[in-house]
Amino acid sequence: MLQAHTGLYTDLYELTMAQGYFYTGRKDEKAAFDYFFRKTPFESGYVVFTGLSDVLDELEKLSFSEDDIRYLGENGFRKDFLDYLKEFKFRGDVYSFEEGSLAFPNETVLRVEGNIIEAQIIETMLLNILNFESLISTKASRMRRVAGDRLLADFGLRRAHGPGGILASKAAYLGGFDSTSNVYAGFKYGVDITGTQAHSWIQSFDDELTAFRKYAETAPENTVLLVDTYNTLKSGVPNAIKTGRELKEKGHDLKAIRLDSGDLSYLAKKSRKMLDEAGFEDTKIIASNQLDEHVIKSLLEQGAPIDAFGVGTELVTGKPSAALDGVYKLSFANEKPRLKLSENVDKISLPGIKKVFRFYNEEGMMEGDGVALASEDKIKKYIHPHINSKQTDTRHLKGDVITKQVMKRGERTGEKASVKEIRERVMNNLEKLPEEHQRFESPHTYKIGISEKLLKLRGELINQKTGNI
Amino acid sequence: MLQAHTGLYTDLYELTMAQGYFYTGRKDEKAAFDYFFRKTPFESGYVVFTGLSDVLDELEKLSFSEDDIRYLGENGFRKDFLDYLKEFKFRGDVYSFEEGSLAFPNETVLRVEGNIIEAQIIETMLLNILNFESLISTKASRMRRVAGDRLLADFGLRRAHGPGGILASKAAYLGGFDSTSNVYAGFKYGVDITGTQAHSWIQSFDDELTAFRKYAETAPENTVLLVDTYNTLKSGVPNAIKTGRELKEKGHDLKAIRLDSGDLSYLAKKSRKMLDEAGFEDTKIIASNQLDEHVIKSLLEQGAPIDAFGVGTELVTGKPSAALDGVYKLSFANEKPRLKLSENVDKISLPGIKKVFRFYNEEGMMEGDGVALASEDKIKKYIHPHINSKQTDTRHLKGDVITKQVMKRGERTGEKASVKEIRERVMNNLEKLPEEHQRFESPHTYKIGISEKLLKLRGELINQKTGNI
Repeated sequence: MLQAHTGLYTDLYELTMAQGYFYTGRKDEKAAFDYFFRKTPFESGYVVFTGLSDVLDELEKLSFSEDDIRYLGENGFRKDFLDYLKEFKFRGDVYSFEEGSLAFPNETVLRVEGNIIEAQIIETMLLNILNFESLISTKASRMRRVAGDRLLADFGLRRAHGPGGILASKAAYLGGFDSTSNVYAGFKYGVDITGTQAHSWIQSFDDELTAFRKYAETAPENTVLLVDTYNTLKSGVPNAIKTGRELKEKGHDLKAIRLDSGDLSYLAKKSRKMLDEAGFEDTKIIASNQLDEHVIKSLLEQGAPIDAFGVGTELVTGKPSAALDGVYKLSFANEKPRLKLSENVDKISLPGIKKVFRFYNEEGMMEGDGVALASEDKIKKYIHPHINSKQTDTRHLKGDVITKQVMKRGERTGEKASVKEIRERVMNNLEKLPEEHQRFESPHTYKIGISEKLLKLRGELINQKTGNI
Repeated sequence: MLQAHTGLYTDLYELTMAQGYFYTGRKDEKAAFDYFFRKTPFESGYVVFTGLSDVLDELEKLSFSEDDIRYLGENGFRKDFLDYLKEFKFRGDVYSFEEGSLAFPNETVLRVEGNIIEAQIIETMLLNILNFESLISTKASRMRRVAGDRLLADFGLRRAHGPGGILASKAAYLGGFDSTSNVYAGFKYGVDITGTQAHSWIQSFDDELTAFRKYAETAPENTVLLVDTYNTLKSGVPNAIKTGRELKEKGHDLKAIRLDSGDLSYLAKKSRKMLDEAGFEDTKIIASNQLDEHVIKSLLEQGAPIDAFGVGTELVTGKPSAALDGVYKLSFANEKPRLKLSENVDKISLPGIKKVFRFYNEEGMMEGDGVALASEDKIKKYIHPHINSKQTDTRHLKGDVITKQVMKRGERTGEKASVKEIRERVMNNLEKLPEEHQRFESPHTYKIGISEKLLKLRGELINQKTGNI
């Protein structure tokens, strides 16, 4: 993503601590960290987990260039440690949910095992990518849910957060969008690209009809006309129909009109009627302007005859949440499971090397997840992490371990999936998540529990730590 | 920023329209576009305009590689146009407010003049960078306002929008932050970098005191201890004091402690008392955890003895606004001024080649801005763009033209300013903006008007366009 200087794509304290581990003689000590989040964005009942492939790419190329080393030297890092960084490569193991999985609060979505330096310094990069892509894919999946089979196009690059817009367009596609206006995301990730025309095209001609005609001449196979530059119903749609008739005479069709302002429901209904009466039943209506999942839902409930939506700001910035709160916590070091306490019990971390079982009912629908120690082959029940009387018997359910090794000694264990494959997985996974977890209003909480062994381990460590104080 | 493929850092429709201009024989026609925004983020009374330098960098290197051309060919672009793109360079002129200026809704902050293709296709990149950097600099300036002389450090990279985090850290600095945890932003832009330590460092040792001691050993000159891993007041602060005493014996000081959870006001007061009583009056208290300008203000109003704030998510994502709504509109083409109408009068654009006068009172405080035609040497008054009876006589005021040429035929006209210089300008500019425009609650609206000539031109074009319909 940055193409160089990947070692510096981090917070300073990761490197300060790495130097600390180096000078306290711990550089080869084994450690494990967990990635998880505590809260879903958008009050969603689930998160679409994406970004893994970009993280693995970064891990494969992680290194410190001569310029990086020089810069760190100027900032107080010491010679022996800098010599160590010169040769540094990530050679750890990564175990994770498959990219495109659904994930829920407080379960171990991914874990990294390696020496304590390599496992530590990747924290910021990993969080930066996973938190952002998962945020946007989750947002996109909500729009897909309400849009049904209608086309969804990402138009957000101009309002995205700088080059973060490239990941946003990719993540939107993974979450269920059909295409993006972002050419670089198309080039880099193979996302389908689409576009229409800007007001400036129309304005640059002396009148709207000439602007439409000239556009149709240069793109007769793919004529989409923006009809709101002057007046949608009095000027834009009538001129589009005139242009459409001329296209027909030459054997082409008017592909679509685009509405970009005003009351989209009202204008779509009026425009549809005008188009139909003029014989343009096949001409589509594209709508854009400040859309999000709630506006799209409302427009369709009003019966607005819109065939495609162009979505920008709300999608690529993940409004209103703006961030997924994923964290990366130490779970094992110095040959022992590790715990972080907190005055807020929800923030007490899960210690040890862990994996996750996902349980399905007879119809193949998701029922709940159980976090267990990696050494457990199966679990008979999972227990609410804080209210231990809440237990779910899993013996009648089908359980899969959904934590898989994706990187071994710094190398991917499998082929890189294409964006189309990951998108397909997301769509399939959402079909297995019961409706009540997907609705927008107070979605039902998906059950996450922990195994008896993990509960016991955590209890022992809490006693030890609070005993020490 | 992307280091390659800069030509593809755009929306598809920019290239589609460029091809349209190419095939309608208009490729050498002169055009001008304006950058402006309609609404400030955060209900702020102003926007800190930043990002210009990154835009000029992108313009200087804008080109299409062989891979880019191949990709566009696969996506339906035609041979003659692709040959044109192979040789493409931006050779236009840019006129703009200085980076670090304050800017207000509906005034022309920047204008681009060039051939219609080069002026069009840079739209997406320009908006992507200016909208985002200005958003974050504005947010940062609000925190600077309430923090006074206290240190402000950006800790946001892990929650930033992918590589957009690099621009976020830079923009936060320009808006008044002192430093960033983001090492790459330090390397690339010269922003000061700072950091403390993570919970994982503490957790990785068998007890907190050992963790603190070992850290102090490796960083005796710069010991900042994170005190909330187990229990802030019962464990963290007492252990920090023990470590501080050991540091003193070796001739060093305990630089700071960091609070990262719990009630920051309560904990800061209690910790300050404990530190003072133990003789650590010079040890600073750093606070972090979900801070924004309102929380910082509240903490300081409560008398919390906090010396430095670490701010993450809310800063780098520009919550709750998440985007500045800047747009890029055609103002001149085919030898005529150009206008975009809208059913919403506020969205009618300002036609023609324009510049902005800024007026100051006798004390040197900003009074209002007047948008005029570039050909006007001075203006005697400026007029509210929609309520024409509202007029401000400017004859008693000092007026400066704040629109300056920053790029000529594709090359910068001046030296590139450093981030420190731009930050200094922001601080100076804010001193000239009256208090009532800076307060958080319903800030007074800064006056923006247009010149008589511009008003007349716009009126004529509106009549022409509505006459056509």
